[in-house]
Amino acid sequence: MSTLVSEDASMDLETVGWVGDARSGHVRLIDQTLLPNEFVRIDLTDVPGVWEAIKTLRVRGAPAIGVAAGFGAVIGARSGTDTRLSLREATAYLRTSRPTAVNLFWALDRMDRVAAEHPELYGAELVDRLLTEALAIESEDKAMCRAIGAFGASLLTPGQGVLTHCNAGGLATADYGTALAVFFSAHAAGKAIHVFADETRPLLQGSRLTAWELQRRGIPVTLICDNMAAQVMKEGKIQMVVVGADRIAANGDAANKIGTYGVALLAKAHGIPFYVAAPSSTFDLSIPDGSHIPIEQRDPREITHGFGRMTAPAGIDVYNPAFDVTPADLIAGIITERGVITPVTTATIQRTFIA
Amino acid sequence: MSTLVSEDASMDLETVGWVGDARSGHVRLIDQTLLPNEFVRIDLTDVPGVWEAIKTLRVRGAPAIGVAAGFGAVIGARSGTDTRLSLREATAYLRTSRPTAVNLFWALDRMDRVAAEHPELYGAELVDRLLTEALAIESEDKAMCRAIGAFGASLLTPGQGVLTHCNAGGLATADYGTALAVFFSAHAAGKAIHVFADETRPLLQGSRLTAWELQRRGIPVTLICDNMAAQVMKEGKIQMVVVGADRIAANGDAANKIGTYGVALLAKAHGIPFYVAAPSSTFDLSIPDGSHIPIEQRDPREITHGFGRMTAPAGIDVYNPAFDVTPADLIAGIITERGVITPVTTATIQRTFIA
Repeated sequence: MSTLVSEDASMDLETVGWVGDARSGHVRLIDQTLLPNEFVRIDLTDVPGVWEAIKTLRVRGAPAIGVAAGFGAVIGARSGTDTRLSLREATAYLRTSRPTAVNLFWALDRMDRVAAEHPELYGAELVDRLLTEALAIESEDKAMCRAIGAFGASLLTPGQGVLTHCNAGGLATADYGTALAVFFSAHAAGKAIHVFADETRPLLQGSRLTAWELQRRGIPVTLICDNMAAQVMKEGKIQMVVVGADRIAANGDAANKIGTYGVALLAKAHGIPFYVAAPSSTFDLSIPDGSHIPIEQRDPREITHGFGRMTAPAGIDVYNPAFDVTPADLIAGIITERGVITPVTTATIQRTFIA
Repeated sequence: MSTLVSEDASMDLETVGWVGDARSGHVRLIDQTLLPNEFVRIDLTDVPGVWEAIKTLRVRGAPAIGVAAGFGAVIGARSGTDTRLSLREATAYLRTSRPTAVNLFWALDRMDRVAAEHPELYGAELVDRLLTEALAIESEDKAMCRAIGAFGASLLTPGQGVLTHCNAGGLATADYGTALAVFFSAHAAGKAIHVFADETRPLLQGSRLTAWELQRRGIPVTLICDNMAAQVMKEGKIQMVVVGADRIAANGDAANKIGTYGVALLAKAHGIPFYVAAPSSTFDLSIPDGSHIPIEQRDPREITHGFGRMTAPAGIDVYNPAFDVTPADLIAGIITERGVITPVTTATIQRTFIA
């Protein structure tokens, strides 16, 4: 149940949003699987459509998935005669779209909770309240990302070169990103910076998404293969590295896209500060350190059959970890919506979040 | 002027060789642009065919290019009524196929020199002598690679994991390789090793060629993306890194495929010894250190259109250095056909080559 809405790129780019009122509105999101060749927004008017969009990575990035799921719950709630029952069925179903995505569960739990907290609401009134909550998830994300951008931009000096890995951009959030928010904010403040984007094998989020986001905002960006980062650092082109995070342990160890740990080691070897940009919801204070974060293995075909043709021998053994963990001692600071945590220790993190 | 000769893979794999006698024989080589999907040998019967094969990387790797060029000179010499004139025209033309390949010039100079050293030979007699020289280039390469393999294998212990980058295999030489010769030799000696092969963006020589060579010899190999090397090292899977080299300065600084320098830094961070395997012809004692090695920039489309379709935004800026230089102090040893040079210093290198 999707309609294609192709349109010109505009500067303020909403990754996922709500169109219309609570009764008849729907989800509209950028189909990220088509980028950068096609910029297409799709309209999703039922829960299976939202489920499929999350499942197939049309929408990806923890915060963006949370926003999409919240809106999906609104659509689900109004799909039957019993609003509460329909909501429960929708949130249960949406949870199966990406079982490992922490923000998906967080957003759906929040939708269920707001219904439970308002037993007095029925039908259209409850749907109205649910949309208010989903819009709050979206607007809170927008505000957090802008705060991260502002704090991070203060660390940058005009003329500096920066490097990022994967896509922690607007496309991974409601609209402004985490690591890329730092660059957007610096650029908006008139600080001339030059971004080097790792292409980020195997799925090329760096070349497909990060390079595209920076290019359309007019921020100078140079695309490199992942294995060129060391050479670019050696040539003195990089003064700071900023990446996102999927999950941060209580001591600051940070899980992020595979390759991030290597970039952190290369940055250290060249004396370049390495920063992580992430909202407070990324911290998991229940795990003491990164050794408690399991490393997901992904489909070997992402490596052997990337982009439409086979580029490795048939039957070859492949190791394809989805992410790695960068130890806190390689991280100069974590840029959050509450400020920059530095040095990165269990104590400084606790001070930030339990105050 | 090429005939397709598809055949089953055999263990002893000649990358480039001569078929027939001096008068009517021709060059036969593996078309590396078709690997790993198709294993095809092509027969080249004229100089333009050899030129095209070098130009388009059907044959690549410094030693293999040298061997192909030597045979090409033989074909050229017999193509006109004046053998000496025809030879000179052929070698001049073949030099233009890959103007930056040091071994190409080295091999063609050697063919010209042998003609100059034998003014008493004419016609068929000279062609015979030229073929003898070209076959000597080939057999010397085979012997050097086997010596490198034997010296390198002595550094390995059964059960170890090793990592390599790009393809310094049989396909880069007459038949046995440099870095991969170390693994072939260890395997032949009954030492169980496990090789991790970096895919090596942008042209994927690791996944297309190295993984294929190891797989067909029955050596356990696991393919990874370049950005996974750090994680594999962190997990304790790697006890040694071995790579090839394109050019080594007098102090041991070694130029090799882009990404090699980064691997060397990651190996150092994990306390893993990093070795370079290369024949003595790779050393350029006329340059004191790696700062004198210019870094060639290659076509941006290798990065933006690498997998048969566009995977980056149109018009994006790209940085695509073909190789990098690993400083000698990151290299535990250089494995040559004369032994392992360690530690790597101007003095130990001079002792090996000027004795």
